[in-house]
Amino acid sequence: MERILINQIEKKEGQKIMIKGRILNMRNLGNVVFLIAQDYTGTIQVVFDKSIEVKIGDSVAIEGVAKKEPRSKYGYEIQGESIEIISAIVEDLPFDLAKNDLNLNLPTLLDYRTLSLRHPKVQAIFKLYDIFLKGYETVMREEGFTEVKTPKILGAATEGGANFFKVKYFDKEATLAQSPQFYKQIMVGVFERVFEIGSAFRAEPHFTTRHVNEYISLDAEMGYIKDFYDVTDILNKVLKRIFLMIEKEGKQYLDMYNIKISEVPDSIPRVKLSEIRKIAKERYNYSIPDDTDIDPEGERLAGRYAKEEFNSDFVFITHYPWSEKPFYTMQSKENPEETYGFDLIYKGLEIVTGSQRIHIYKELMENMKKKKIKPDGMEFYLDTFKYAMPPHGGWGWGSERTIQQILELGSIKEAILFPRDVKRLMP
Amino acid sequence: MERILINQIEKKEGQKIMIKGRILNMRNLGNVVFLIAQDYTGTIQVVFDKSIEVKIGDSVAIEGVAKKEPRSKYGYEIQGESIEIISAIVEDLPFDLAKNDLNLNLPTLLDYRTLSLRHPKVQAIFKLYDIFLKGYETVMREEGFTEVKTPKILGAATEGGANFFKVKYFDKEATLAQSPQFYKQIMVGVFERVFEIGSAFRAEPHFTTRHVNEYISLDAEMGYIKDFYDVTDILNKVLKRIFLMIEKEGKQYLDMYNIKISEVPDSIPRVKLSEIRKIAKERYNYSIPDDTDIDPEGERLAGRYAKEEFNSDFVFITHYPWSEKPFYTMQSKENPEETYGFDLIYKGLEIVTGSQRIHIYKELMENMKKKKIKPDGMEFYLDTFKYAMPPHGGWGWGSERTIQQILELGSIKEAILFPRDVKRLMP
Repeated sequence: MERILINQIEKKEGQKIMIKGRILNMRNLGNVVFLIAQDYTGTIQVVFDKSIEVKIGDSVAIEGVAKKEPRSKYGYEIQGESIEIISAIVEDLPFDLAKNDLNLNLPTLLDYRTLSLRHPKVQAIFKLYDIFLKGYETVMREEGFTEVKTPKILGAATEGGANFFKVKYFDKEATLAQSPQFYKQIMVGVFERVFEIGSAFRAEPHFTTRHVNEYISLDAEMGYIKDFYDVTDILNKVLKRIFLMIEKEGKQYLDMYNIKISEVPDSIPRVKLSEIRKIAKERYNYSIPDDTDIDPEGERLAGRYAKEEFNSDFVFITHYPWSEKPFYTMQSKENPEETYGFDLIYKGLEIVTGSQRIHIYKELMENMKKKKIKPDGMEFYLDTFKYAMPPHGGWGWGSERTIQQILELGSIKEAILFPRDVKRLMP
Repeated sequence: MERILINQIEKKEGQKIMIKGRILNMRNLGNVVFLIAQDYTGTIQVVFDKSIEVKIGDSVAIEGVAKKEPRSKYGYEIQGESIEIISAIVEDLPFDLAKNDLNLNLPTLLDYRTLSLRHPKVQAIFKLYDIFLKGYETVMREEGFTEVKTPKILGAATEGGANFFKVKYFDKEATLAQSPQFYKQIMVGVFERVFEIGSAFRAEPHFTTRHVNEYISLDAEMGYIKDFYDVTDILNKVLKRIFLMIEKEGKQYLDMYNIKISEVPDSIPRVKLSEIRKIAKERYNYSIPDDTDIDPEGERLAGRYAKEEFNSDFVFITHYPWSEKPFYTMQSKENPEETYGFDLIYKGLEIVTGSQRIHIYKELMENMKKKKIKPDGMEFYLDTFKYAMPPHGGWGWGSERTIQQILELGSIKEAILFPRDVKRLMP
């Protein structure tokens, strides 16, 4: 018999069919066996009026008759006639994948990642991630951005910064890209609007719920902006469209977490960092410790303020100080202590960082000098600015953090198939 | 004035408009200046009845009146009134970007990459690449594949192989992924069908026109296959749909190279490697040197044979020998010297490698033993096969080689924005 996909069963009502897939769950009531099978198109219940010799987790082929069944949450079920094992479990599963919740601690969840990913609620995270990627790919193209792929092995540490992983590159030493920053800016000179979905690597020895050492960054860069609000406006629009797609196409996955996805305001509130500092102090009696930056508690309070004041899960914090921002970030014309740099905070956590960049060669060189950064190894980037770069800006968007925040997961690592942290290189 | 995008000009006929963009070309005929301007939506001619003080390459804002102009290849033009420099070229360009062809040798083309990319014919390569990526993202989803992102920093060298770049990972040594092989197979156990677009790194000291050390691999893996022809069939279908998309949406770029994109047969011819060896000898009087593999000339002759015999630019070479294939490749049931491994040859060059994989734990362990590969560091992968992996297979598809072959470029490096080879880490 030819295999029928589970999402095609409704077209086969009353007919004998064969499906293939994995047994997700099974209840044996003596004379009746209820079994849940999954293939790449969906999930269905199969009812056998006899005992069957299979285990939860087996890969099987099932023959039976497709039936309408209004009591089933799938709307249809299969009256099972025969079941054949395609590939059998040869060792007992280390935990019960048929439970509604896995309830594993994070190290166990990750140590047994190749199996824990099979749990429906864990699958749901990565089905949402798939929709998120699709959304970014689709919406960015519709906004006129060209998809680019830039190198991840770099000859020089970008941004003059630390925390780069080192690579032995034949007889040279190279580093892994922390971001496609230089390359995406260069590409503004070519295509005006570009986006990239790519790996980013940070050798930061963090042990937090929101950091990992390898992640997927959703980058964008655009030219001919009037000011950095052109960047936040496009980001706002793209975010809104993607969240609507996730809401629509990901409903069944959001429901598994009892999550109603946040509404993205047409105009996300924007607050200067200096204002946030005051608000944290006056309204929440919290002093953001660092003079010039914001700490996690500050971000959380910024989120709280946006919720209380604007009923928004999102807030742009703008005008980050010059001292904290990389040399390519444009200084504010109104206050040289500040820049046109911004973060997007979602439910109290930064998920996007962006800015207007300096596009005039002379200003860029002067800013480097002020910041005491040597141009060595960055000449190809700097030279580009001799050739008429338009005013531009862009962002780097943490994809996994966004999913973490949508689903309110305890750790970003739950939103990564095979996360990398200081101690974890496997699986 | 509000900026109008160039592809919106036809809606503004007779009206005064303002565009922003880069000057791609300019001809000064004394009392008339013809200028070509480009923004992210297109290219247009602007005519000034007076002299203007701008240079080719400048970023400008132009005001003028939109006019229908049937003699122009754009169908419209702008009667220019004023031009303002937004960002000026401050140093002479090292080569003439206004020529029809750059005619630079490869090292110069790449040394000045940040500028050579601005040439319309170079832009065209990466516009086609963008359509190719969009095609893969779209078609794979429509075929039921879930997009995944797997780690590029690995704790162990996959495939037991050599030629891995080494990374210093805190106090450990790690390697960069040559492919997502293990992870995409594991994901078949989760989603049955997965695809990935990701960076791949190979520390091979090659100096050829078809190798680089970092590239973008289009991967796929699918479960519940009957045999490896299920994999080649889907690949055939996906390839055909993507090539039709490139033909339709990329026409203007293909035209710049006088390329008519290859027709993908509904059923790409399949020839066993052992047959290709005979054909090379008997038909073309060429002995493929290695006993068990194929060399570039062999690939070229396979392509020639497919063209002559089947009028196809594509041919699957199948049943690669067991001795040459990684331990996870399934052995042929008919001839244990051979495997269910295949390559897709396009215009005489391999662009895709794939196979059916071993899905039974015991067989996998036996094959490793026969190949004298130690399981150290691969336990997480191997253990997955204790838990009922369905029959499966997949492919790794070289994205840049495909564009190289479509456009018949002299080197794969022309199809990469910022290529990496043994000597090149910059730009």
